Amino acid sequence: MNSFHFDPDAPLSSSLGYQVRETHRLLESYMQQCLVRHDIQIGMWYVLRVLWVEDGISQREISRRIGISEPTTLEQLRRMAARRLVRRVKAKGDRRKNLIYLTGDGKELREVLLGYLEDLNDIAAGDIPDATMELLVETLTKIRHNVRGRLSRI
Amino acid sequence: MNSFHFDPDAPLSSSLGYQVRETHRLLESYMQQCLVRHDIQIGMWYVLRVLWVEDGISQREISRRIGISEPTTLEQLRRMAARRLVRRVKAKGDRRKNLIYLTGDGKELREVLLGYLEDLNDIAAGDIPDATMELLVETLTKIRHNVRGRLSRI
Repeated sequence: MNSFHFDPDAPLSSSLGYQVRETHRLLESYMQQCLVRHDIQIGMWYVLRVLWVEDGISQREISRRIGISEPTTLEQLRRMAARRLVRRVKAKGDRRKNLIYLTGDGKELREVLLGYLEDLNDIAAGDIPDATMELLVETLTKIRHNVRGRLSRI
Repeated sequence: MNSFHFDPDAPLSSSLGYQVRETHRLLESYMQQCLVRHDIQIGMWYVLRVLWVEDGISQREISRRIGISEPTTLEQLRRMAARRLVRRVKAKGDRRKNLIYLTGDGKELREVLLGYLEDLNDIAAGDIPDATMELLVETLTKIRHNVRGRLSRI
């Protein structure tokens, strides 16, 4: 047991959860400001990122990969279809299953939107040394591993 | 400019935003599993944490401190009042303004719920050296500083 211990009487900002949540919110705000120029909501961005890696997967699989509920994913995909970013195609063999494909527009956005992400990563890292950024990613990965191991047995 | 550079063709997991978001989601999941035993939702938890620091503040101030919209805060406070965690009191001098106070129940939950947070911080840190955890917090703080400086001028 280390001694990086949370003190309930210390300011909120001393909690690890606070630190990670605030950083997440700020990175997301930056992306939102970029995406709004293209009339893209942040929820659509997470779906696009999944489809840019693998196109033509099921709604359920998208939901699983992003880690949001199926009804929320469904609603998001409906908006994305209306925005002509994706189209839904009934799966051969199982007509109840929808597969989601990017449209030309959805594919074309990849370069410019990932460009924003590239900028954001550079801005965030600023003059922080590479080794420190690498240690950050390594530490966050370790933390997830530690917490994951306890998730099912609390 | 450092060279911890995001490569659009690398896996999603190599992006800083992904790392921070996934870690946030996992820490939140752990807390959710603890809170559900007390019939507390995660949104209530964020409000409680603000009120445990300062009781009797306005709805708008709660919304600002958590960083969620005022309508969402209002709805959350309505649920918390129904759950008898808080009570809303009209401000003297400005009857349109509601001040939010913890009930006895709301106050009593502090010890047990912060106990879970204490456990979570210990579990997350595991055997990661103190110096590494301190560097993590320092680096996240620096990243927020870097990104905040660019938020208004993109």
